[in-house]
Amino acid sequence: MPAQIEKESFAIIGRELEHRGICLPAEEEMVTKRVIHTTADFDYVKNLYYSEGAVEKLRKALREGACIVTDTQMAKAGINKKALGKYGGGVYCFMSDEDVAKEAKERGCTRAFVSMERAAALGKPLIFAIGNAPTALVSLYELMAKKCVEPAGIIGVPVGFVNVVEAKELILEKKEEVPCIVARGRKGGSNVAAAICNALLYGIQEKG
Amino acid sequence: MPAQIEKESFAIIGRELEHRGICLPAEEEMVTKRVIHTTADFDYVKNLYYSEGAVEKLRKALREGACIVTDTQMAKAGINKKALGKYGGGVYCFMSDEDVAKEAKERGCTRAFVSMERAAALGKPLIFAIGNAPTALVSLYELMAKKCVEPAGIIGVPVGFVNVVEAKELILEKKEEVPCIVARGRKGGSNVAAAICNALLYGIQEKG
Repeated sequence: MPAQIEKESFAIIGRELEHRGICLPAEEEMVTKRVIHTTADFDYVKNLYYSEGAVEKLRKALREGACIVTDTQMAKAGINKKALGKYGGGVYCFMSDEDVAKEAKERGCTRAFVSMERAAALGKPLIFAIGNAPTALVSLYELMAKKCVEPAGIIGVPVGFVNVVEAKELILEKKEEVPCIVARGRKGGSNVAAAICNALLYGIQEKG
Repeated sequence: MPAQIEKESFAIIGRELEHRGICLPAEEEMVTKRVIHTTADFDYVKNLYYSEGAVEKLRKALREGACIVTDTQMAKAGINKKALGKYGGGVYCFMSDEDVAKEAKERGCTRAFVSMERAAALGKPLIFAIGNAPTALVSLYELMAKKCVEPAGIIGVPVGFVNVVEAKELILEKKEEVPCIVARGRKGGSNVAAAICNALLYGIQEKG
């Protein structure tokens, strides 16, 4: 029943895109459609930026067991852990750990920075799915510049009004180095981050 | 620092509303603004419907220890449990419980129905915060009709393309009986449900 409703929803989204004269690139189609399914917001047709071959590269990383790092418990809750676990991956979120807050205070930096640093220290292939904190994207940029982390991919979709647009554009500077999917502009969110992760995962499953 | 950014974000939202010539009713202002803060989507100015005195009534229920029932783990993750716990409340979500799926299959009904029924059986004052499943709203409507549940409030903000608009309009038929906040139309989501709960909670805190 839920599967049937989802199928019907995607058919409606497909028809409305067609009605608007929009033809999505085949590789990106299921990801963009799932974000629209999650938000009922067709603005994401324009907002979502994909670096070259991003979907294929991110799927390859997931298939090979990459883990996902989120910046909220909400995004973590929304990611299909069963689908991810099939390939050996798991989800990490350090943002609300008490000792992260403590360390950030002591060092005079943000919780997001400490969280990204902890993720980097895992020494695993990681996809960062950031739906809330622009500071997490800025921290990733800094850690990449210092060669402290080499992400398998970045899903950069924080939402908001302060430093959000800038942080997303900053990550786009790295688009040649790291596969990324970024929601340009103010929109995004933990739900969007989780939807993109799930669309990537379900795309692997469909290929069997 | 995050508090400062939030303050700045709300100031920007306030200025943009003013620029659009929008003056929100005082009681609803902080809730609508927090939804915009969570989505960067000003459509919620038009979409959000509040039954008479809904914000005040829902805050009163929370202050008196009402619990919140969600239809997703994402919404549960997004609700500030610390703020809620201060008044004695907690958050329940039965949707992904294995025995709920089993019971739904055996009885030939939806997981949402079984989940809403289980919540009703708690025998506590409950606010239902529904961000995903229109069937949860329909189930609530049916359970209310049978006098099986008398919610302290309903936050009806599922998102989607199939039966979503209809389910929300159905709940609005009950607006005289139960305080409700409903996102009319297709938009909504677990993030919106959590944002509304948090805005209600923070509003209590501000009063001290």
